[in-house]
Amino acid sequence: MASHPLIVAPPASLRKPLRVPNKLLLGPGPANLSSRVILAGTHQVIGPLQDEMYKIMDDIKDGIRYAFQTQNTLTLALSGSGHTAMEVSVLNLVEPGESVLVGVNGIWGERIVDMAERIGAKVHQMVKVPGEYYTLQEVEKGLTQHKPVVFFLTHGESSTGILQPLDGYGDLCHRHDCLLVVDSVASLGGAPIYMDKQGIDVLYSGSQKVLNSPPGISLISFSEKARSKIFNRKTKPLSFVLDMKLLANYWGCDNNPRVYHHTIPIISLFALRESLALLADEGLEKSWKKHQEATEYLHRELQKLGLQLFVKEPKARLPTVTTVAVPQGYNWKNITTYLWKKHDIEIVGGLGPSAGLVLRIGLLGCNATKASVDRVILALKDALRHCPKSKL
Amino acid sequence: MASHPLIVAPPASLRKPLRVPNKLLLGPGPANLSSRVILAGTHQVIGPLQDEMYKIMDDIKDGIRYAFQTQNTLTLALSGSGHTAMEVSVLNLVEPGESVLVGVNGIWGERIVDMAERIGAKVHQMVKVPGEYYTLQEVEKGLTQHKPVVFFLTHGESSTGILQPLDGYGDLCHRHDCLLVVDSVASLGGAPIYMDKQGIDVLYSGSQKVLNSPPGISLISFSEKARSKIFNRKTKPLSFVLDMKLLANYWGCDNNPRVYHHTIPIISLFALRESLALLADEGLEKSWKKHQEATEYLHRELQKLGLQLFVKEPKARLPTVTTVAVPQGYNWKNITTYLWKKHDIEIVGGLGPSAGLVLRIGLLGCNATKASVDRVILALKDALRHCPKSKL
Repeated sequence: MASHPLIVAPPASLRKPLRVPNKLLLGPGPANLSSRVILAGTHQVIGPLQDEMYKIMDDIKDGIRYAFQTQNTLTLALSGSGHTAMEVSVLNLVEPGESVLVGVNGIWGERIVDMAERIGAKVHQMVKVPGEYYTLQEVEKGLTQHKPVVFFLTHGESSTGILQPLDGYGDLCHRHDCLLVVDSVASLGGAPIYMDKQGIDVLYSGSQKVLNSPPGISLISFSEKARSKIFNRKTKPLSFVLDMKLLANYWGCDNNPRVYHHTIPIISLFALRESLALLADEGLEKSWKKHQEATEYLHRELQKLGLQLFVKEPKARLPTVTTVAVPQGYNWKNITTYLWKKHDIEIVGGLGPSAGLVLRIGLLGCNATKASVDRVILALKDALRHCPKSKL
Repeated sequence: MASHPLIVAPPASLRKPLRVPNKLLLGPGPANLSSRVILAGTHQVIGPLQDEMYKIMDDIKDGIRYAFQTQNTLTLALSGSGHTAMEVSVLNLVEPGESVLVGVNGIWGERIVDMAERIGAKVHQMVKVPGEYYTLQEVEKGLTQHKPVVFFLTHGESSTGILQPLDGYGDLCHRHDCLLVVDSVASLGGAPIYMDKQGIDVLYSGSQKVLNSPPGISLISFSEKARSKIFNRKTKPLSFVLDMKLLANYWGCDNNPRVYHHTIPIISLFALRESLALLADEGLEKSWKKHQEATEYLHRELQKLGLQLFVKEPKARLPTVTTVAVPQGYNWKNITTYLWKKHDIEIVGGLGPSAGLVLRIGLLGCNATKASVDRVILALKDALRHCPKSKL
């Protein structure tokens, strides 16, 4: 049956067992998995078109509606990380030639610009120094000037540590005939967000942050205005895989019988269902409070070490991911490596516009505890003593 | 801190425990997970930029090279199912306005046509009756007539049960200055394929078939010719998430330091690494033989029941997924539902052009055993006795 000799031998690397170190993940995500989520991953697969799977998908939709505080029908999980959700928003909401406005105060805005340019949108950027957020006045100026059909804003700017206020931005956009898209990948479950009340038209988040699920899934919801824009497009979205009309049908969000679209990541969805159940059990308000308190405690302890928080205004600090200025005289990479190797803790450096400027420490979901803070502070103290320091 | 009252209560559906029935999955995939793969999924996450993760990614690249029988540098796993791999091929290889040729003898060809049309390619279809494959002569005619830059062919046409021969097609395409893309989602590990020897320029497959991994990951590799076309594009691919140049860098397939692109599905990659290790342990030739033998046994037993195989030519039958004509007088849906509910076995109906015409039975990876065949045959006998039959 084999018609040719094999030219590639079984690789020696695969003869060794899989080695995964057990670490406390205090970066900006992925975070550690909760044990109930790990257990969910030990089930056997079932087929993506079985009623039992549809039931789990429906549970997930319920859980997302709760986490987002929305009653939107078009609410589902995407087979891809936060970047996929970002691209789904761009690809489906925007048609080539349409004008969009993007708040660029960190890496996520930069990426939206990249995505929107690829599909031929007219992209206008509102650029800010990393570590600042957008006021209503600034947004109004941008909307008046550029007349975009969509405005993109990041709620939890995890590359800079900024929490963007959201009250009033939806109404403002709607007065200017513009849809509001909000990225809450790094903030959902950790900072208050009220999709319907705040008039957010598209909201998305990721599985691997506060939800303590494996990376690879994102959550998304569309207002009636956003749904209507998508369903009335003149052109097909440029991607089949990310076509929201097809996904809406497969997830049972329209009134038609479900049709196979692609094979969803069944096991990851089991895990996500359990993550959302855990959040519903705990309650959003308790979860928000937990993150706020743990992160404020972290901030106090960092300042006691003589470290500088990157975001000056206390109210603008993200209650999930903290940015700390790289201590003077140190190379950030030495510190993160020291923590990883000597203390089994992951913290990371900056990203995009904050690269080289900051260390980032995340307290996400089950990691948002006083015990995590005590561990990372002890480890940082040790690192500051042992990592090489240049003379200033 | 919470500034508004909650308008959506924790959903009652999530107060109940997750329920996943344990089934024998003998559809065209997903297949059951092997126990080593399930165990891999119980690890904690690690960060996507840690050396330990890069090592696992490198192991995966080695494993794919073995499974594909290729030495290509640009070989990696994609964060998405087979559909994602299909779209990655289209989006990266083809620029708007370029001519492509697609073998459409089942649903997979239809989907490639859809994807290629979305990005503005000039799409030419070679349409065949479901249940037939393409001869070298037919392909040569198409290449001469349409002068495509890429030709798309499906190795394992799981909607119709066809195995496409591959010897000679690569050379033929290259003589016509055309790249050959082959979909082996449903065949990899079950039927011989030799990427380098057969001159295949892009080959992709999925995690949830013969590899017995969870759905949600796909494998892909690019020849030097394909890599060069992608790296010398005049336009950026229309998707950031699926941009192969960025993915190549993140997966360590170029000579530059790895840069964060998106958060990869860490846990699913642990599972895939173990799946590839299992395939390497078993050996490709043994795996091919196992599928061939189990499926031939299935075919004999089906024929003993008086059922008709949908693919007439024995050599053209896929050794992984079998299509059987729906027995006269029966509704296919009654049979699949009966097997699911009474025998805890998943088999499925047709898809796309084979919808309503066939039942599909898959013997994939650890499910490719005589015992699986015996179970499904017993169940089918029972179904034929108990499902309603119309008078002919």
